[in-house]
Amino acid sequence: MTTLLEILHQVKKGHCSIDEALQKLQLQPPETIEEACLDHQRSLRTGMPEVVYGASKSVDQIVAISTSLLKNGDVLLVTRVDEEKAKEILAKLPELEYHQKASILCGNPRALDTDKCRGKVLVICAGTSDIPVAEEARVTLASLGQPVEPLYDVGVAGLHRILNNQPLLTQASVIIVVAGMEGALPSVVGGLVSAPVIGVPTSIGYGANLGGFTALLGMLNSCAPGLAVVNIDNGFGAACMALAINRA
Amino acid sequence: MTTLLEILHQVKKGHCSIDEALQKLQLQPPETIEEACLDHQRSLRTGMPEVVYGASKSVDQIVAISTSLLKNGDVLLVTRVDEEKAKEILAKLPELEYHQKASILCGNPRALDTDKCRGKVLVICAGTSDIPVAEEARVTLASLGQPVEPLYDVGVAGLHRILNNQPLLTQASVIIVVAGMEGALPSVVGGLVSAPVIGVPTSIGYGANLGGFTALLGMLNSCAPGLAVVNIDNGFGAACMALAINRA
Amino acid sequence: MTTLLEILHQVKKGHCSIDEALQKLQLQPPETIEEACLDHQRSLRTGMPEVVYGASKSVDQIVAISTSLLKNGDVLLVTRVDEEKAKEILAKLPELEYHQKASILCGNPRALDTDKCRGKVLVICAGTSDIPVAEEARVTLASLGQPVEPLYDVGVAGLHRILNNQPLLTQASVIIVVAGMEGALPSVVGGLVSAPVIGVPTSIGYGANLGGFTALLGMLNSCAPGLAVVNIDNGFGAACMALAINRA
Amino acid sequence: MTTLLEILHQVKKGHCSIDEALQKLQLQPPETIEEACLDHQRSLRTGMPEVVYGASKSVDQIVAISTSLLKNGDVLLVTRVDEEKAKEILAKLPELEYHQKASILCGNPRALDTDKCRGKVLVICAGTSDIPVAEEARVTLASLGQPVEPLYDVGVAGLHRILNNQPLLTQASVIIVVAGMEGALPSVVGGLVSAPVIGVPTSIGYGANLGGFTALLGMLNSCAPGLAVVNIDNGFGAACMALAINRA
Amino acid sequence: MTTLLEILHQVKKGHCSIDEALQKLQLQPPETIEEACLDHQRSLRTGMPEVVYGASKSVDQIVAISTSLLKNGDVLLVTRVDEEKAKEILAKLPELEYHQKASILCGNPRALDTDKCRGKVLVICAGTSDIPVAEEARVTLASLGQPVEPLYDVGVAGLHRILNNQPLLTQASVIIVVAGMEGALPSVVGGLVSAPVIGVPTSIGYGANLGGFTALLGMLNSCAPGLAVVNIDNGFGAACMALAINRA
Amino acid sequence: MTTLLEILHQVKKGHCSIDEALQKLQLQPPETIEEACLDHQRSLRTGMPEVVYGASKSVDQIVAISTSLLKNGDVLLVTRVDEEKAKEILAKLPELEYHQKASILCGNPRALDTDKCRGKVLVICAGTSDIPVAEEARVTLASLGQPVEPLYDVGVAGLHRILNNQPLLTQASVIIVVAGMEGALPSVVGGLVSAPVIGVPTSIGYGANLGGFTALLGMLNSCAPGLAVVNIDNGFGAACMALAINRA
Amino acid sequence: MTTLLEILHQVKKGHCSIDEALQKLQLQPPETIEEACLDHQRSLRTGMPEVVYGASKSVDQIVAISTSLLKNGDVLLVTRVDEEKAKEILAKLPELEYHQKASILCGNPRALDTDKCRGKVLVICAGTSDIPVAEEARVTLASLGQPVEPLYDVGVAGLHRILNNQPLLTQASVIIVVAGMEGALPSVVGGLVSAPVIGVPTSIGYGANLGGFTALLGMLNSCAPGLAVVNIDNGFGAACMALAINRA
Amino acid sequence: MTTLLEILHQVKKGHCSIDEALQKLQLQPPETIEEACLDHQRSLRTGMPEVVYGASKSVDQIVAISTSLLKNGDVLLVTRVDEEKAKEILAKLPELEYHQKASILCGNPRALDTDKCRGKVLVICAGTSDIPVAEEARVTLASLGQPVEPLYDVGVAGLHRILNNQPLLTQASVIIVVAGMEGALPSVVGGLVSAPVIGVPTSIGYGANLGGFTALLGMLNSCAPGLAVVNIDNGFGAACMALAINRA
Repeated sequence: MTTLLEILHQVKKGHCSIDEALQKLQLQPPETIEEACLDHQRSLRTGMPEVVYGASKSVDQIVAISTSLLKNGDVLLVTRVDEEKAKEILAKLPELEYHQKASILCGNPRALDTDKCRGKVLVICAGTSDIPVAEEARVTLASLGQPVEPLYDVGVAGLHRILNNQPLLTQASVIIVVAGMEGALPSVVGGLVSAPVIGVPTSIGYGANLGGFTALLGMLNSCAPGLAVVNIDNGFGAACMALAINRA
Repeated sequence: MTTLLEILHQVKKGHCSIDEALQKLQLQPPETIEEACLDHQRSLRTGMPEVVYGASKSVDQIVAISTSLLKNGDVLLVTRVDEEKAKEILAKLPELEYHQKASILCGNPRALDTDKCRGKVLVICAGTSDIPVAEEARVTLASLGQPVEPLYDVGVAGLHRILNNQPLLTQASVIIVVAGMEGALPSVVGGLVSAPVIGVPTSIGYGANLGGFTALLGMLNSCAPGLAVVNIDNGFGAACMALAINRA
Repeated sequence: MTTLLEILHQVKKGHCSIDEALQKLQLQPPETIEEACLDHQRSLRTGMPEVVYGASKSVDQIVAISTSLLKNGDVLLVTRVDEEKAKEILAKLPELEYHQKASILCGNPRALDTDKCRGKVLVICAGTSDIPVAEEARVTLASLGQPVEPLYDVGVAGLHRILNNQPLLTQASVIIVVAGMEGALPSVVGGLVSAPVIGVPTSIGYGANLGGFTALLGMLNSCAPGLAVVNIDNGFGAACMALAINRA
Repeated sequence: MTTLLEILHQVKKGHCSIDEALQKLQLQPPETIEEACLDHQRSLRTGMPEVVYGASKSVDQIVAISTSLLKNGDVLLVTRVDEEKAKEILAKLPELEYHQKASILCGNPRALDTDKCRGKVLVICAGTSDIPVAEEARVTLASLGQPVEPLYDVGVAGLHRILNNQPLLTQASVIIVVAGMEGALPSVVGGLVSAPVIGVPTSIGYGANLGGFTALLGMLNSCAPGLAVVNIDNGFGAACMALAINRA
Repeated sequence: MTTLLEILHQVKKGHCSIDEALQKLQLQPPETIEEACLDHQRSLRTGMPEVVYGASKSVDQIVAISTSLLKNGDVLLVTRVDEEKAKEILAKLPELEYHQKASILCGNPRALDTDKCRGKVLVICAGTSDIPVAEEARVTLASLGQPVEPLYDVGVAGLHRILNNQPLLTQASVIIVVAGMEGALPSVVGGLVSAPVIGVPTSIGYGANLGGFTALLGMLNSCAPGLAVVNIDNGFGAACMALAINRA
Repeated sequence: MTTLLEILHQVKKGHCSIDEALQKLQLQPPETIEEACLDHQRSLRTGMPEVVYGASKSVDQIVAISTSLLKNGDVLLVTRVDEEKAKEILAKLPELEYHQKASILCGNPRALDTDKCRGKVLVICAGTSDIPVAEEARVTLASLGQPVEPLYDVGVAGLHRILNNQPLLTQASVIIVVAGMEGALPSVVGGLVSAPVIGVPTSIGYGANLGGFTALLGMLNSCAPGLAVVNIDNGFGAACMALAINRA
Repeated sequence: MTTLLEILHQVKKGHCSIDEALQKLQLQPPETIEEACLDHQRSLRTGMPEVVYGASKSVDQIVAISTSLLKNGDVLLVTRVDEEKAKEILAKLPELEYHQKASILCGNPRALDTDKCRGKVLVICAGTSDIPVAEEARVTLASLGQPVEPLYDVGVAGLHRILNNQPLLTQASVIIVVAGMEGALPSVVGGLVSAPVIGVPTSIGYGANLGGFTALLGMLNSCAPGLAVVNIDNGFGAACMALAINRA
Repeated sequence: MTTLLEILHQVKKGHCSIDEALQKLQLQPPETIEEACLDHQRSLRTGMPEVVYGASKSVDQIVAISTSLLKNGDVLLVTRVDEEKAKEILAKLPELEYHQKASILCGNPRALDTDKCRGKVLVICAGTSDIPVAEEARVTLASLGQPVEPLYDVGVAGLHRILNNQPLLTQASVIIVVAGMEGALPSVVGGLVSAPVIGVPTSIGYGANLGGFTALLGMLNSCAPGLAVVNIDNGFGAACMALAINRA
């Protein structure tokens, strides 16, 4: 199998046109490790590196897959890693950094490069309980080289908290709004700005919150224009969407 | 069967103490008409007259029951009567008045008596499509002698519409907030006032609005204090709750 | 930032009218502590102090936020605090009181002031398993200076238990009815009184109780007038609604 | 194929023991008519004749099947037949009787035979809108020779209506309770009697009534002992259960 | 308060007619113990003693309530008691008996009295995992003096298991059928017998079994006549219904 | 664009290997007609021709698409065509045949070729109301050249109807079982045979049948081995699965 | 009330700074027409004009509101207008244009101005039945001056249809993917591109499609990065999000 | 009771025809062990041995039932056995083999006999988290003597992974596709092959994945022909269906 390196060498030497190389890379067979079928070329196709979903993987699986992905030289992100699991992984891969509130392990973070960005991403959350999901979005974006700023605990029950921050809102190029319970904050934000708004419902709440479905449904039915929604608690997915939008 | 009239005569003559009369009235067997078992004493127990739910009744049933209830002398309310049915009933009971937007037929409306009220009830709705439900609440309250004022089409996607009306909000003794889609308006109102707020979700919307369940769930999960909720599209129920609260 | 104290001094000295002060306070930027954005003025706007939802917060977060809120001088309520967590917090804030059945930590309870109340709040529950939710409502109200009386384990399967207490029912100014399983008790109570009734469904039951949704749906569909509903297990929310209603 | 008649003749002549006959009859191949596979022996096995569910059948199908079943000599019941369809069928089968409120066509009704019954079946319903379902139960039982008595429009919002009828309740051998909306009436009745209670939820209501699921869930979660439930709007099924119980 | 004993003495001495006594007992105020409002007269009204639902009660609560109820002299049943809790209770109330598979604690079981019964109750279950629910029904009935027989692990995937037992089926006066997964067994049994059939769905299964809702829905939609259903896993409720039916 | 014909000519002349032809055909751009993107090669890839879902298409769209597909020479199937629409289409395409019970329009039916089949497909349904769905499956299979036999109205409430037909069951190579209401029939059939069983839930029923979801869930949770399920009312999908299985 | 015109004049004359004007306009009280509270400044805040949701409005309401909005000079969009209603409106407002497949009435469409756009928006749909929703998105974008291109009927059951169009995919700056049934197409597209993808589930399908919820849930759970979702059938909402993203 | 052995001896000696033997065996009463009613003849009827569902059984129950079934001489499968339970059982039944990823205990595996098979079964899964379900299917099939091959971690977000393996797809006689999250993989596979496809939704995912229902619904609504579905996480059920199909 021709490796990424070989293809790039061929391109440099003129043995392969850029178009041919792109074609090859996009069709290149994936690498198989520990029953995982790694897709090293995803970054080329979608601009997002392959990210490891840590919740359903063992420490050994994460270490093996991370080691393979780190060889690529691109940023490594492992999401949904609790503190205990993180410690064990860090013992074997000390070059990684653990973001505790975000439950993310990161290696080779991309440097901030504002030239390649349209502007700053704003990550808002409604209550303090929503912060872990907001941090998953914020850390993902920061690790991918995006300028990003948090604005937390500004829910609709005290409207002046969000109204006092209107300059922040109008300057952002993309806004991620994280909210549980009734999920009303994205509607309010969406009515105040012209930037695209990404709603992230969280499972925070109890009783009739239906594990986050109430917030999800509320955001989907929002009357505010320019609002789209990702899965419950999916801060990572919101970051991906924001990244896709924020590319210059 | 001793009638209401006879009991009141006995009270007047001193043949029956007020306590006994109250007792009797509350236990008095209901009248049976057209298979309906009329509860003439409901007003004595709960302050609300027996109201006729018109949606599942024929013109003949409504006319028969209305005729019987009108003899009581108290206000008559028939809810959920569409325009066509209303015309047929009015042909037989021309003393009734039809409120078309509210789909309510009313007879013997109670006179406005502000002395018996704590203050003014404010009925708010989020969008123009929510007006029929808001009107069901407003007309019910007005017919029962309550001071009531509407404030319509002030949803959260244009926040200044509600913020511009803050004096109205702070002066109300009870506030009914009618909203469909994401149902966020009661949360916003609840965060601005100290009066009790009654949320009425509506079935307005489409797709994931679940026939009003999305708005209902949103209101139940609101983080705003002092907010309680009634059934979807139940403007009448909200009016009953407001009446119970607004008694002086 | 002008503090609450300064504003009050200015009012006292006549440097600021009461209207101006109210305006200022309602717009005053919130204080940021431990990522929480404290809304010290909520009590001014809504009559309810900012209450801490303890379930999703750590001991350290609760201690920090409580310390800040206690400086306000108003009552402090921390809800959903289990016994173990309560012990740790009490070790650091011994001036608080723990209500074990209600899972509430309270500081600076407001004194009972019946002059500012319309009457007594009655808290009813259907079964012994519903008591924790009923106590959350009762303790919240008592801590906020409201007269409140419990009537527990009087479900509809033995109707005489509620019928024997009709005097209590008719004297209350507001009634909170807590019930799980089929949630039928608020309908029965609502048919007996003219006071506003607040239904609180609980998650008590099994099988087709759907975690409290069965009771919630039953209460929302009640044919009794003057009944509104709060979220499942939300004794605190019912207390807020009762407080809003019971103000003289 | 040996017919029912032949088998009975053989029994009479002693060519076949009763046990053998029973065995044969229960295994006898069904008759095929208009793609329907008629089960003439169902009555022998279960005590219930094969009943025709009219809602999804054409006039021609109903006439053909009814004609075949009438030959059996047993009672014929066709349920869920609207008025228009009934007229067309009666034109062809004038010996049938149409019960309009129950939407049932009946032929060869069984005579009332109280000796074969344990007692009287009581059919209760909560509101006037529930009457069609209650009538489906009542007419089915009456047509099958059961003594049955109605008690309609006695819902829980006016408790005295049911409490005034306690003698009727305590004398019944089986009680069918039909209720929509919150479905609380079976719980109340179940707490007052020792007879078995069959709950029938109806689809009456709106908003969060979920087409009858709210009432169904309420009844399933009832804390009253001796209560079982049938499908939404299934008056016929309740009658079958009552018949099975009421056999002497 | 006049006690049960006093009333019975008055009856014996002729100071009180039987009708008066019955009236008194049914209206007698309940006893309040540990916040439980005990309904000693339930047995008189409904034929079922007050049964303790053990799942949500502490050992101390169960011991206190049981001690009070045992004084009545009637059978004591505490359901949903796991093995560990049972041990602690037995240490304090050694006169009780623990039925481990049924998770029931029983005191003063009623003696078998076939004269007061219509016949034998048959308790069927579909799979071995359904046995705990079936045993809850069987032990409840046996403790209440009913003749009862089990027939377990005879699900529809091997039809001959149920067909081989047809004599048992046809001799029973009531049949309880317990089944999880698709819940098809009650339909099959209902098609074979004329006795009333009580379906008990169980939460056994996984994936799309929805915690027993699939079996519940299947039983509610059964085309078999003479079938009614109780809540998921509610063996106790099925026993109550069977008892109500099986009284001679 | 190279047509199917040209490719086959090239193969015949040896200008193109069979492998190359297959490759080409599978990658051949689809034809665009009336905004539909026709996939003429689907039959080559999957063995099923492109079938037209008639429910959401106008008469003109169906005529245009059918005309294009008929040129292919393969069988044409248009499903979910009601009688009125069928008449209009037949007026323009008289060479088609309309199967009224199945609501299918067919052109160029494939001839029965038992050599290419493993055996006979048996289509069973539980009640007469399920026949339209069963016929959709049967007509689809027959039009595709499969041997297929119906066995209708043999539901579990009269078990002998299915037990009497056991030889039919054991001889079939694939069995499609169509059932509404509780959907128990596939479990019973699955327990009697070794052939693969395809369950088709139908929307037949009312109340808690949830538009067919009850039957669907029942079949998914069946304890019978060798059973898989298709969408509600999807007789066509069951036929596709049966065809895929029955190929020799 | 100061009008928009006056403010702009003041700006021109220097009597009002641009910042002040912006401030004023955003807080300007809305105009009230036919109970609708028009938000003329929405376009200033969010870049989207106020759009009229036609489904729940009468012809008269639409004409009145449209007339008022047209005075603003900005584009007018009325969505969800069926053909019959459109005719009546066009009779009164002949300057509007009706897009029949999209069910949209448009006045004053914005001219295409590619300088203000990042690139071309691609609107993809899976099947021909999804076209009306796709057209709602496409017409909305085109009317707002966006370059937009359709790619219809390219669902996943024939993958080559989408793979053959990869150049179109990689050149788009935003992609809207409309799909019903299982809603798999956005996952496939999201795995092929780096542009942001907006998924629009449709209610197309039957049986277990749950009115579009199946497609909605599928898209929310997609493993593809850079994908966010709007409400079922909400082509308009997708267009708003795409517009917010596509601004240069 | 005549045992299996005796019947076979009678056949050998000619005392019983093969037809008679088959008949007997299929009706033979099941053996009762530990309250389980073992169906030794299931394999004769359905080709599948009785398989033990280990999740809800104790170690002792599994050992007793396994010992009885092993005497039959046929393969023994115990599914859903976690590692800890497996160890305890292996200590008592060391002849069993434990497949850890599949959570299956196996005894007497059937030898691979390709003559009795139509071809190779292919087991595909979308992500690494789906492997346990895929392995349950693969190990079941291998233990039953079927040729089976895995193809794991080839989800739709990187389409080339599945497209690169098209030869494997086209050669399989049956394909099992295991997928969680949006469950789109079976649709893609179903569009590429003519073999029957069995979809297995898994509970892998979070938020709006609804415990696997999202994937289940997606597969049921797939537009791909020749696809049927089994319960969530039911790798075993898929294997049974594949076995029924793959018999030569």
